[in-house]
Amino acid sequence: MAFISHSGSLGNILCRMGPQKGIHFSKAASLGNECDLTAADLLSYLMDDPKTGVIGAYLEGIKQGPSFLSALKGASRKKPVVLWKVALTPEGSKAAASHTGALAGSREIWNGVVRQSGVIPVQGLDVLLDTLMGFSLLPPRLGDRVAILSGPGGLAVAAAEACGNAGLKLAKISSKTLAILAEFIPPTGTSLQNPIDVGLTASLEIQIYLRAAKALAEDSGVDAILVVGRGMTPDTHKLYTDGLIQAQRESGKPFCVVNIPGFDADFAVDLCQAGVPFFETVERAVTVYARVRRYQIWRTKTAGR
Amino acid sequence: MAFISHSGSLGNILCRMGPQKGIHFSKAASLGNECDLTAADLLSYLMDDPKTGVIGAYLEGIKQGPSFLSALKGASRKKPVVLWKVALTPEGSKAAASHTGALAGSREIWNGVVRQSGVIPVQGLDVLLDTLMGFSLLPPRLGDRVAILSGPGGLAVAAAEACGNAGLKLAKISSKTLAILAEFIPPTGTSLQNPIDVGLTASLEIQIYLRAAKALAEDSGVDAILVVGRGMTPDTHKLYTDGLIQAQRESGKPFCVVNIPGFDADFAVDLCQAGVPFFETVERAVTVYARVRRYQIWRTKTAGR
Repeated sequence: MAFISHSGSLGNILCRMGPQKGIHFSKAASLGNECDLTAADLLSYLMDDPKTGVIGAYLEGIKQGPSFLSALKGASRKKPVVLWKVALTPEGSKAAASHTGALAGSREIWNGVVRQSGVIPVQGLDVLLDTLMGFSLLPPRLGDRVAILSGPGGLAVAAAEACGNAGLKLAKISSKTLAILAEFIPPTGTSLQNPIDVGLTASLEIQIYLRAAKALAEDSGVDAILVVGRGMTPDTHKLYTDGLIQAQRESGKPFCVVNIPGFDADFAVDLCQAGVPFFETVERAVTVYARVRRYQIWRTKTAGR
Repeated sequence: MAFISHSGSLGNILCRMGPQKGIHFSKAASLGNECDLTAADLLSYLMDDPKTGVIGAYLEGIKQGPSFLSALKGASRKKPVVLWKVALTPEGSKAAASHTGALAGSREIWNGVVRQSGVIPVQGLDVLLDTLMGFSLLPPRLGDRVAILSGPGGLAVAAAEACGNAGLKLAKISSKTLAILAEFIPPTGTSLQNPIDVGLTASLEIQIYLRAAKALAEDSGVDAILVVGRGMTPDTHKLYTDGLIQAQRESGKPFCVVNIPGFDADFAVDLCQAGVPFFETVERAVTVYARVRRYQIWRTKTAGR
């Protein structure tokens, strides 16, 4: 994962935040006002860098539009380029002009660049980092049939709603899988319809989470598993994270893990280092998953052209 | 601040998250499937509850539409009602039906409810909590002329861009204030144009932040001050938070504080308890500020009707 930035401080901050989530950078470059190398030069270099799988960028102004667009198109066809472009408002443009001397760009021109190039546009540092993480950890050929496994019922519904908003489907769980789930999920205050709601107390009886995750991952109608939960003691919590990592490894299916908000999320690094993406909210998880999938479809479509 | 919820677990989680940011609840009610009391009943009660200044809600389905709309309209004219409505997608509706038995609602009808009632719609737990905090801490009659004070230059530009996107203006700083700022802000790697960029090293020389915040708050062309920064040692950090709290108190102008991401944000509780709202990102700070301001304008306009 590489990062190029018109802001040195944002480069600094991102390279500090990444490792806190178990994500590390191959290269990072601060371009300042581009008096020498430009964003186009760096994109052209990074698209062939074997140590870089995903390119992230924070850009204020674009110098030499045509060569930038050409470099961006070329890079996006090889690797995902996740780009936070500012200075699309008069307020941001004025600020960028006094920061890096960037010239104002029009939002319409920028929208055209996004459509033509296949770049992944983002706004904000947290969305940028989430998206980079998703692209670096999620496997190829993502499907759209998601199984949701949650302890909190409200977050199960919210995750389903987020899937709908992001254009993903709720996987139809097979009757065989439902029969397995019914063996150990208590009948009251839970739901076996996708989203699977195992009840908030499953955070104490952590095997309920792990057995359910395993069963869902083995269902051939399920492409990905979104898990919302955690253990409530250090011991159950370690069982939980280790169990989810193992379930992803054994099934070969992608997992996305979301914490129960309000509790420490210091296990993010364990999950991400083991290749399981971790997100702060269900909305962020689902949005990133859908974006990675859309990019994969776009790249397959444009591959022959 | 009161909270009503169709999900018991979300009520639980929110009442756990609030105090971590120094925000406390007057009342919280879990309505489940509304076999007895409805959301309309609770809204009608809370709108006259002297201990409640802001009402938050997570709702899946609406029973008896007309009486709900009437209660929502009545409550919104007295107090801000921040509402996270799910089940507007087929996926969310199906999930809600098996969770609280909620009937599906149409997104178009819901958009009509939002337009007619003055309710503040949100999506997601983090946005809900941010918005509730903003409404409970920001004072009446917010203006749209924002001064941005930042150490990281990229976040200064991003904050200006976020202001543009949210319909806020960058305050024009008076020449008198600029002369004061020039006395102690180093000339290199900084900017005296709004956004004021004091340089990343100001996190070590914390008086630069505090003197700048004070000068900006005293400028009659400035309605609010957004500060992005922190001290890098426990001592400078305490000086920083105490100094900002004091500057808000003395000036009577609203401050919004944003951490430098990647560092512990455990001072959120100190700031919020002292009445200074704290946000995780510049985008979240600016969006909430603009929403509170829009609601205040709407309420003034509809007051006589």
